[in-house]
Amino acid sequence: MTAAATADRRARVAASLPEGLDALLVTNLVNVRYLSGFTGSNGALLLTRAGDATFATDGRYVTQAAAEVPDLEVLETRAVGPALVEAAGRQGVRRLGIETEHVTVAVQARLAAVDGAPELVACRPVVEPLRAAKDEAELAALTQACAITDAAFATAVASLRPGVTERDVAWTLQSAMHDHGAEAPAFDSIVAFGGHSAIPHHQPTDRPLRPGDLVKLDFGARYAGYHADMTRTVAVAPVADWQRDLHALVHDIQQRCRDRTVHGAAPAALDSYARELITDAGHQPAHGLGHGVGLEIHESPFLTPGSAADTLADRVPVTVEPGVYLPGRGGVRIEDTVVVRLAATECLTASTRDLIEIS
Amino acid sequence: MTAAATADRRARVAASLPEGLDALLVTNLVNVRYLSGFTGSNGALLLTRAGDATFATDGRYVTQAAAEVPDLEVLETRAVGPALVEAAGRQGVRRLGIETEHVTVAVQARLAAVDGAPELVACRPVVEPLRAAKDEAELAALTQACAITDAAFATAVASLRPGVTERDVAWTLQSAMHDHGAEAPAFDSIVAFGGHSAIPHHQPTDRPLRPGDLVKLDFGARYAGYHADMTRTVAVAPVADWQRDLHALVHDIQQRCRDRTVHGAAPAALDSYARELITDAGHQPAHGLGHGVGLEIHESPFLTPGSAADTLADRVPVTVEPGVYLPGRGGVRIEDTVVVRLAATECLTASTRDLIEIS
Repeated sequence: MTAAATADRRARVAASLPEGLDALLVTNLVNVRYLSGFTGSNGALLLTRAGDATFATDGRYVTQAAAEVPDLEVLETRAVGPALVEAAGRQGVRRLGIETEHVTVAVQARLAAVDGAPELVACRPVVEPLRAAKDEAELAALTQACAITDAAFATAVASLRPGVTERDVAWTLQSAMHDHGAEAPAFDSIVAFGGHSAIPHHQPTDRPLRPGDLVKLDFGARYAGYHADMTRTVAVAPVADWQRDLHALVHDIQQRCRDRTVHGAAPAALDSYARELITDAGHQPAHGLGHGVGLEIHESPFLTPGSAADTLADRVPVTVEPGVYLPGRGGVRIEDTVVVRLAATECLTASTRDLIEIS
Repeated sequence: MTAAATADRRARVAASLPEGLDALLVTNLVNVRYLSGFTGSNGALLLTRAGDATFATDGRYVTQAAAEVPDLEVLETRAVGPALVEAAGRQGVRRLGIETEHVTVAVQARLAAVDGAPELVACRPVVEPLRAAKDEAELAALTQACAITDAAFATAVASLRPGVTERDVAWTLQSAMHDHGAEAPAFDSIVAFGGHSAIPHHQPTDRPLRPGDLVKLDFGARYAGYHADMTRTVAVAPVADWQRDLHALVHDIQQRCRDRTVHGAAPAALDSYARELITDAGHQPAHGLGHGVGLEIHESPFLTPGSAADTLADRVPVTVEPGVYLPGRGGVRIEDTVVVRLAATECLTASTRDLIEIS
């Protein structure tokens, strides 16, 4: 991340500060990273409407901050929030926005108790909506995260044979992602065999793979801070007709949803379209259609009912992940990470969506 | 975790509810796990003074909740907090405590807006202090986590040769912990070579190991939810006198601090004792002496200035981790996870603290 990129982001935040606020205290660490480049575990940022920025971190991170945040004044303190509230008061800020989706009630009280504190004002998310549309450097990192994810999928599929456990396969995925350059998994991998595949968020167990199982793999790599997300469901021979039919149904629904995930589409409408397709096929929708990905695995925009995002803008990556689950028998989910662009939506995860049958 | 154990914990929470509260809304997921056994990512618990408990989670976790929380009524809903606030109102609760160190300002507003909501009362941490003293099943899990940590240390030391990078060694630690049965690392491993060892919280890089380097390894395994934490600093030949002296100094300080980490000792006094020893040796203390470990890697009691804990009780595991850092040259930290017991403090991490010199 270049200093020019973070400066540009800070300028956009300053330009979109709600009326009546003189400054914003950024304490959500993901937003701090986005706006400063800092990747440590204790840091905060004060941004004024005029575009001035002050960064605070503690002594453990001074060396790291000098490398990652070379362009900002660094305040060294353990209590980064209170120190920046005090700095805001000194700078003449009268009304200071705080990130109420992240600040706890206890922290708010500590901030308000600072000597000379400005008035603290509850502020709707300002940085998160700006993070939804990525720049090309961010998309390059996400593209690489997806390529690593594809490579790990191939390795995991090659490892599937009767007797391996869900935990074994989760580790195979993690090792393969590491070997291909991931800094970490994007989240705890979901590996679900047989009846477990009907549980949308299943945690891997010691259940061994058996003939006739569906295998649901939902995982992704994190690369340079960016999170890939992909799901594929494969089948182990002998494959039953209901399994092929279920897979074909979800494949078709996913393709239709992908076709509509384009510039200008409404996230809530996409979600309701997926629910309609699932319901029309005689099944019960179990979860939303998808979500944004970036510095977080789940971020704005959400493809869910009542989504806060109006329409999909240019350079917005989202997942498209419909699933149909038959309790006790098995389930199929197919998920891609795609990027909405003006001309056409681009799919970043490239593993085949055809049903792989392991003999 | 047995239903009897979680029921006993809930009874202790009910008995220690602050005056004037009729019930407590538990939304911190670690506390929810401690009091119910639930390990999913969306759940909350309503505990009344009379000892009644209601658990809420969403449809994704119904199967899991049936297995993990067999003894409690399960309310199925996505908005677990608001649903339990509503349930509290129906149950006649007039004053409902909320965990203000975890509830965000935005969530508090959503809870207060629930129809028929009781009065929401800011509540000091109630569950966290109870979590500090472990039962024997918890200590067995932590003991196993520490044994895995020791085994991984041996593997990592055997892998140290000029040319391997910090990232390589971090992965060696992670793989070895997995191979020995860890469910995950307890936290991102710190692997710091040469001058990097002077940075207390260093993130592994591609820096290769060179002759004459100090190597600081701070890592641990998570087992059945419990977090081990250990640091060792080893040296690669040719080892300089200042490195041996620095290591001997920290070894001595750590032993003295361990000797005083006993039943009845005051955490803040232990921290100040460590600072005194470091200062007397002509160095600058860089961080606190230690912290509790359990379902979180950092939890009560904290061995820091102004610690909220008065004295160390029976069956309380803490880390003892003094360090001395010479900026630009190198640093040494030695850390054990120990358990305070009535008779004597027991050390769970068993790797040698003598200086290992890699030839």
